[in-house]
Amino acid sequence: MKKLLNDPADAVVESVEGFVAAHSDIVEAHYDPIYVSRVGGAVEGKVGLVSGGGSGHEPLHAGFVGQGMLDAAVPGAVFASPTPDQIAPALVAANGGAGVLAIVKNYTGDVLNFETAVELAEAEDVEVATVITNDDVAVEDSLYTAGRRGVAGTVCVEKIAGAAADRGDDLAGVAAVATRVNANVRSMGVALTACTVPASGKPSFDLPDDEVEIGIGIHGEPGRHRIKLEPADAITQRLLDPVAEDLHLASGENVLLFVNGMGGTPSSELYVVYRQARKLLEARGVVVARSLVGNYVTSLEMQGASVTVLRLDDELTGLWDAPVHTAALRW
Amino acid sequence: MKKLLNDPADAVVESVEGFVAAHSDIVEAHYDPIYVSRVGGAVEGKVGLVSGGGSGHEPLHAGFVGQGMLDAAVPGAVFASPTPDQIAPALVAANGGAGVLAIVKNYTGDVLNFETAVELAEAEDVEVATVITNDDVAVEDSLYTAGRRGVAGTVCVEKIAGAAADRGDDLAGVAAVATRVNANVRSMGVALTACTVPASGKPSFDLPDDEVEIGIGIHGEPGRHRIKLEPADAITQRLLDPVAEDLHLASGENVLLFVNGMGGTPSSELYVVYRQARKLLEARGVVVARSLVGNYVTSLEMQGASVTVLRLDDELTGLWDAPVHTAALRW
Repeated sequence: MKKLLNDPADAVVESVEGFVAAHSDIVEAHYDPIYVSRVGGAVEGKVGLVSGGGSGHEPLHAGFVGQGMLDAAVPGAVFASPTPDQIAPALVAANGGAGVLAIVKNYTGDVLNFETAVELAEAEDVEVATVITNDDVAVEDSLYTAGRRGVAGTVCVEKIAGAAADRGDDLAGVAAVATRVNANVRSMGVALTACTVPASGKPSFDLPDDEVEIGIGIHGEPGRHRIKLEPADAITQRLLDPVAEDLHLASGENVLLFVNGMGGTPSSELYVVYRQARKLLEARGVVVARSLVGNYVTSLEMQGASVTVLRLDDELTGLWDAPVHTAALRW
Repeated sequence: MKKLLNDPADAVVESVEGFVAAHSDIVEAHYDPIYVSRVGGAVEGKVGLVSGGGSGHEPLHAGFVGQGMLDAAVPGAVFASPTPDQIAPALVAANGGAGVLAIVKNYTGDVLNFETAVELAEAEDVEVATVITNDDVAVEDSLYTAGRRGVAGTVCVEKIAGAAADRGDDLAGVAAVATRVNANVRSMGVALTACTVPASGKPSFDLPDDEVEIGIGIHGEPGRHRIKLEPADAITQRLLDPVAEDLHLASGENVLLFVNGMGGTPSSELYVVYRQARKLLEARGVVVARSLVGNYVTSLEMQGASVTVLRLDDELTGLWDAPVHTAALRW
């Protein structure tokens, strides 16, 4: 295993230390237990947003803490859920008196630990609503999941719900927007290589030199099938078609097209995927009204990409366009 | 070779097509010859900025076209200089009547081809000044270079010169600012793995599983030496110390600390490197006043990172902070 790390046991803490030092105008860290929150603390009267999950998917979630998005993020160990004892103080810290929305990717450990944390926070009189993201169309049930997995679409939920909170929606309203985004976003990914969890030191799965895994999970969970390597346009179609069909996209609809890198893929390749995904959507009569391309929900150094499509309406488009100022997303 | 590409011969064009489609509010492409320019063309009365070089270093340079940075960028084939016939029209297109600054990384092919292109542009009555970046302290002369190589510090030159042009400096003034940035910025990198140029299909060099290359070039050119893999803190010190010493950094000085990913390294590792580089600077009494961490000057999917330090004064800090709106850098 070749990584720019010290003791793997310290990787998450040291990375968070570097992250908050580099972005001290936006975020601050708490170390016992560990979570990241907005500088200056909760915004009075605004619904707070908290997300979290296993580390290894950076910039998700700490990279999305800041104005217009999350108020706190809770990193677990690599590919492992944060504990309720970690999550609960983040929920409390994010409460500006208007309650907190927890955004949870649909993995069994995350869902359970957030549930317990919500009970702990509620015992401290913090009102919490939870929205579970499950945008991955590749498989029903998976290694760590009952039902569909939450993957890159989570970024869309966090961005748009964050904008809804910023405009003053109440907790039920922000939760409703988040639920609506999750209902209208779908993703599917491909892996060209496995990644290596630092604590294990070995690739998380074996993939022959001439094969790719279609429908890969962000922890290297199995997808739909393995195929021989194909040109990017063919692989992209294997990702885009199931997404478009699951969304029942109709001609004339507007969408956000989001091509996400898994961590080890050059951005030049992501744009090749984007180019073909956009062509395929346009061939369906779908209008790509907004775009996002880059490494936003990664699997350490995995090579691969995912394609996410979010059906837009005027309200969601406006919330997407609203100002955001985080380490990883800003406009 | 496993890449998300179609025919390697089409990789640059297809990637540019995707890039400009995704960022059509910022950039547009020209295909015969190929270059990328700001939507809306040259800004009347503003000094234009043009850079270019081999592809494979994305987001450099096209990702830095936009308000506050470059007016045009010229992508060569992967790791190969763009041709004079490509560069000249970009220089002409970037001219808003106040002349154009060409920012060229110090590689023999780039320097020669920009020189010829400048002559072609001057024949069309475009005044051009050229600044050559050579921030890499690792080696004097290299596989493609006489003198030091231009690497990640080029981003600092492009950002700050772009801000100087935006505030209305004339061509000599913008060139002087760019020259001053280049004189005060130094970098050094490390490779954990090689990368594979699509057209060749093979890794650009061999690096044993337990070794890293200290002082790597962004095309995989040899660095200072190979060592056994060490903890990140030790590797970071091997990068930061030569940079700090070459800059003759003194206690009390302000710097920008920029940790750049080579393309295949998770951002979590970049922040571990940043953490240690910052500690080492602080131990020297140096103040890290600004920071940048991410994949900005890459080598395809190479795993590794570089450390760049820019000595700041009030003027350079103000220009760094000035608004920028490009695909890859915005605030």
